[in-house]
Amino acid sequence: MKKLTIALDAMGGDHAPHEICKGAVLACKEFSDLEMILTGDEEKIKPCIHGAPSEVLNRLTVVHAAEVITMYEQPATAIRKKRDSSMRVAMEMVRAGEAQGCLSAGNTGAIVAGGVLVVGRLPTIDRPALGVPLPTINRWTFLLDVGASVRSRPVNLYQYAQMGNVYSKKILGVAEPEVALLSNGTEEIKGDDLVVEAREMLCKSTLNFKGYVEGDDIPWGRADVVVCDGFMGNVILKFGEGLMQGARSIIDEEMGHRFMPKVGLLFMIPMVKALWARFNYEKYGGTPLLGVQGTVVKAHGRSKAPAILGALSAARNFIVKDGVEQIREELE
Amino acid sequence: MKKLTIALDAMGGDHAPHEICKGAVLACKEFSDLEMILTGDEEKIKPCIHGAPSEVLNRLTVVHAAEVITMYEQPATAIRKKRDSSMRVAMEMVRAGEAQGCLSAGNTGAIVAGGVLVVGRLPTIDRPALGVPLPTINRWTFLLDVGASVRSRPVNLYQYAQMGNVYSKKILGVAEPEVALLSNGTEEIKGDDLVVEAREMLCKSTLNFKGYVEGDDIPWGRADVVVCDGFMGNVILKFGEGLMQGARSIIDEEMGHRFMPKVGLLFMIPMVKALWARFNYEKYGGTPLLGVQGTVVKAHGRSKAPAILGALSAARNFIVKDGVEQIREELE
Repeated sequence: MKKLTIALDAMGGDHAPHEICKGAVLACKEFSDLEMILTGDEEKIKPCIHGAPSEVLNRLTVVHAAEVITMYEQPATAIRKKRDSSMRVAMEMVRAGEAQGCLSAGNTGAIVAGGVLVVGRLPTIDRPALGVPLPTINRWTFLLDVGASVRSRPVNLYQYAQMGNVYSKKILGVAEPEVALLSNGTEEIKGDDLVVEAREMLCKSTLNFKGYVEGDDIPWGRADVVVCDGFMGNVILKFGEGLMQGARSIIDEEMGHRFMPKVGLLFMIPMVKALWARFNYEKYGGTPLLGVQGTVVKAHGRSKAPAILGALSAARNFIVKDGVEQIREELE
Repeated sequence: MKKLTIALDAMGGDHAPHEICKGAVLACKEFSDLEMILTGDEEKIKPCIHGAPSEVLNRLTVVHAAEVITMYEQPATAIRKKRDSSMRVAMEMVRAGEAQGCLSAGNTGAIVAGGVLVVGRLPTIDRPALGVPLPTINRWTFLLDVGASVRSRPVNLYQYAQMGNVYSKKILGVAEPEVALLSNGTEEIKGDDLVVEAREMLCKSTLNFKGYVEGDDIPWGRADVVVCDGFMGNVILKFGEGLMQGARSIIDEEMGHRFMPKVGLLFMIPMVKALWARFNYEKYGGTPLLGVQGTVVKAHGRSKAPAILGALSAARNFIVKDGVEQIREELE
């Protein structure tokens, strides 16, 4: 069996290193072809994997890295200066070919900067994009860019659309992805200069391009790939997360001082479980950085072990399906 | 008692004229100082108000307008050419001083165009803004611009912040509104050129300016006024609406083929009612167009009578509090 190696930044994320390492162990149990390199403070990592079965431990290598890039550092400076940081060391592994991909739940900006500076852009891509698969009412919609850049030019949106198309097809398994541009209305007369120009470019492409979608078309699942600039994508993603968490917190609060709804909830347990299975965003927990010369996946900063497993599974899938090469070919 | 007159576009919206007229009757019942002018097809409007009590009918005047601006027309052209449209006639009433304010649930772009072309901009405002009060976890957050313009310059965002501050203070009753700019992160280094420049202007203002907020800060209610450009505001608002409707539709669907959750729901009725009372967005159903020389309020296209009542109540409140004058003074 062909082996496959992923370098994992064990020190990145709110629950590092414990939950990150636990996720690595889960992934090794699930995928017997997977080998992993855990980068970071050896003294801290070793106790986290101590209890794993020996057939897993055999596939886990710890590579010591003395520094950590925190969430509050200026990304490009941090990745440049902290050469011995767990994140940079993981990325160097990809550049050197010692790992086919890397994963980090750390500083998003630094992951993007490292993707460009360490792993390297694909020559045909002006700017890489971070994409995220979102569970919608009837499908998984791949939204990009969710924050690799701030603002974009039309050519960037055009390239995001192409990369999103590849990801949707090859990784999420959609036969002929419907690709759309996020705008302030579906009619042709809508849009700002940016999306108007990107639309013209996309209409001439070979993509299955649907034109504009509006904000509500995302939750209603009216496209497989939705393209926007990183400022918009970032705000949308966080707004959606906040809305769902806020709604949950309010229901918990209202439930807290009442007895009857708690009884009612008991009748709903199977339904709540079914809903969670259907909309478990951790299933595709990884946010790939597309447009770089290797597999680079970001996991949410709040990730615990199951989300790390989901992200590692996405990274593995991207490697197995030769995602980088597919994007390179699509853009040529 | 001082009388107060609002012109209502009886033909605008998905449920016009029936629900619009019903909303007018409700408003007249609730506010004894309110007189209303219903503009539109006399033949269609009259049967809708036929059954109202005479003390309400005494305060309802129908002004015939032969044309209707549809949702799909190019807004500025429609408002220019359709001089006898129900929307334009209602706005002319405001310009002529026959009504202190107007309300429409019709074509949003046409309402904005009419606000500028018919009612007129305030001289100190470069571009008017549409704002919307959103129920969040702990307060009503006023979000603007949600689509009066597409993209903005920094000075526009600066003016939106000032107008939002007035609305929050005078209409929503917040003592010292916390005003914030929507960005892709809360740190000072975040933002695109637009928000960076707007931020600098706002830091020097007398507003209680909190800097940047992120997408999730909206549902968590971390500011009273959140400012963004109209493209972003439009997408955010529709995305949020879609997410809530989508979530509801999914729960309905899962509930549909199960018996137990329906039983469970019975235990939850009082809680669901309490939640609805708390987050009933129709309470402040109106979306004011700020920065024009009269009270112009847009209601949601899907508005039924209670939402029209909410929007009329917002319009009345804006007139009573002398909102236009307050904004004029603030911006001087």
